Formats: sequence, structure tokens, C-alpha cells
Amino acid sequence: MNSTLLHGFFRSSTAFRVRIALNLKGLAYDQRFRHLRKGEQRAPDYLMLNPQGLVPTLEIDNHVLTQSLAILEYLDETHPEPALLPKDAVGRARVRSLAYMVACEIHPINNLRVLQDLSKRFGANDGAVAEWFRHWVKETFAPLEQRLASEASTGTFCHGNTPTLADVCLVPQVINNTRFQVDMTPYPTISRIHRACIELPAFAAALPDVQPDAE
Amino acid sequence: MNSTLLHGFFRSSTAFRVRIALNLKGLAYDQRFRHLRKGEQRAPDYLMLNPQGLVPTLEIDNHVLTQSLAILEYLDETHPEPALLPKDAVGRARVRSLAYMVACEIHPINNLRVLQDLSKRFGANDGAVAEWFRHWVKETFAPLEQRLASEASTGTFCHGNTPTLADVCLVPQVINNTRFQVDMTPYPTISRIHRACIELPAFAAALPDVQPDAE
Repeated sequence: MNSTLLHGFFRSSTAFRVRIALNLKGLAYDQRFRHLRKGEQRAPDYLMLNPQGLVPTLEIDNHVLTQSLAILEYLDETHPEPALLPKDAVGRARVRSLAYMVACEIHPINNLRVLQDLSKRFGANDGAVAEWFRHWVKETFAPLEQRLASEASTGTFCHGNTPTLADVCLVPQVINNTRFQVDMTPYPTISRIHRACIELPAFAAALPDVQPDAE
Repeated sequence: MNSTLLHGFFRSSTAFRVRIALNLKGLAYDQRFRHLRKGEQRAPDYLMLNPQGLVPTLEIDNHVLTQSLAILEYLDETHPEPALLPKDAVGRARVRSLAYMVACEIHPINNLRVLQDLSKRFGANDGAVAEWFRHWVKETFAPLEQRLASEASTGTFCHGNTPTLADVCLVPQVINNTRFQVDMTPYPTISRIHRACIELPAFAAALPDVQPDAE
């Protein structure tokens, strides 16, 4: 047996990234769902695979891989076509910097366990939690929009005319924003790129709402 | 002119990562300091280089690079020796996953702008901010210790017997922890690796306290 198994959750942005990448690479995979609000990511059998108790985990090539960004790089190294990173080092640095603006500056601060902690620790109600979420999106989406609108390497997608790691991280964030009523009108370039992405079957098939565990 | 210039701040964990990598690669560089508590990262001349208004920014090879993890990958691609990532894809995924445990699960939630926001938004006092900081360290250091203590690829350093991207991210976090009185006794493997790292000149010369802008 050498089947590929993704442990995720329909709404997890980081599992969503991995679904997009697997689809772009044309890799077949099964999914097992770990319901985050029910705490299934803390089940003993799952902690054996992923001691952090976070999704996603990818079982592939008889290895257990964790951390979505590490998984994306692994998939790109082991299945180079279509490439998620350009060939030149400066282009790769640009794509990674755009990806990490979302993956390191927005998502970690706004993921479920942090939002839950705000309520528990500071008594934040739903409105205050949503304000927090929108604040950190805006802090990064404003300069991200500026970069994407002004830098010559932006194309149909974040970098040129094929999707890269930057798009793989961007789309789940934009989708996640809809749950917190983020106003996207200040971000026309981000919105344009997002629309181009979700027209692609690889992105469309990875959307949360079409996963078997969607609620 | 093709000199390398790092825009940073002595206490910034992410600038610290880049200093370590530049030192490991044996690359000469100048530093310009942007005092984060004085808001110098928001100065117009700096926002021209880095629209996010975050440190670090690296000017190198006539390019302007942002996002520390993207800079580290760039340095490793353009100056392959000594390598910050192993040669095999599974090893690279392991190193990156260890690095991202710190860089994506701890640091973004605990950096200065988030801590300042907790005070402003929720009225968190110094004690509450420190509790928050320690909570997110513990959430990740516990499984990180478990992985480093149990996985066969751990050596003198996080992966084998030469420092990698994982160590480059780990050491600044451990140093940062000291400011918030994080109890390190539950993490003997992390502590052992940290001590091995800071014995190396490349790490020692990158420490916050020996930077020209240290307070």
C-alpha cells in the first residue's frame, strides 16, 4: 500500500492549501476528516501522527508529513510539474514572500485556536473576535494589494500566468474572509487573482463547501 | 555597488534568523536598524522597500527581499554551502516542518505588534501579555520537544550534526523566551540543541545583545 491520505477538515485553510496543491499536481488522494470544533485533532490516534494536534497531516510515499508549507514544498520537489515555484531564485523569493505574507502574518493570528483563546482569555464576544480577524487581514492585505498591483511580475496569478505557492495560500484566506465579512473592495487585484484561481478545476475541487465533511 | 544590507532590529527574531544565515554562509553585510518601538519601520523611506513595514528586509544582489523565511531559502539557493536544508526531500520536509512549528505557530502570535494590540484592544496588562506569550510557546514547544527527543534524525542539532533552517528559527525563539520568563525545564532536547547552536560563532555573532543597536 502506498496510497496518499490527507488528514484535514473542510474549513481548515491549511488543509485547503494542500488539497489545491495535490489537485494541481494531479495526485490522487483520500481524505480523512478531523472535526476541529469537536476536538478530533486531539484524538490519541491522530496525535501519534501529528503531535501538534493540528491539521493537515499528509501520509504520502510511506512518510508522514506535517505543516502545510513544508508539505507544499515537498510536493513541488517530488512532483516538479506543474511547478508551484518559478525557476529563478529571485522569482522564488518573491513567490515565497507573497505566500508567507498570508501564511505567516495573517493565518496564524486568525486561526480557530487563537480565536477561541481570545474568547476564553479576554472574554471577547463574536463581534470582538470578528474585529480582530478583520484587523489582521487588513494589516497584510493592504500591502499585499499594493505589491500585487505594482510589481511587474504579477500576471493572471500572483506571479505570472500559472498558479504558484502564493495563489495556493491566498485563495483559502480570501475564502476564509467571507466568514468574517471582510470588505474586499479595497483589494481589486487580490480579488481578480482569486477569481482567476477558483475558475481552475484544481482550486474549485478544493473549496471547503464541496468537501464530503462540509456542513 | 553590490553590497548586502540588512534592515533589522536587534531584538527582532526574524532579523536574528537572517543574521544567523548570513553568518553561516560567510556573507559580509551591513546593518541598518529600524527601532520597532519607536515605529521606525513605518518611516516612508522604509515603506518604499517593504510595504508591510516589518523587519527584516535584505538588500542583496541588487534585489530587495522581504519575509525572513523567503530570504533564508534565497540564501540557501544562491549560496548552497554550507546547506541549511538536507539533500533528500523527506529530510527537507522534516527540517521545514520543525522550522515552521516555530515560525508559523509561535512567532506570529507573539510578535511585538500582536502583543501591543492585546493591550490596546483588550486592556491586557504586562502580566496578561506574558501569560499569552508563554501559552503559545508551550502549545508548540511541548510537541516540538517530543519530536526532537523521539525522531531518529535529530542529532547535535535539530536535524543531524550541522545547523539547518530549523535551528536558525529555533534559537531566536529560545532567546526571545527569556524576556518572558518561559520555564525551559520541560524542554531538555530543545535546550541542548540551543546550547550547541550558540556555541557556534555564526549564532553567537547574531545574538541580539551584541548588535550595535542593543539597549
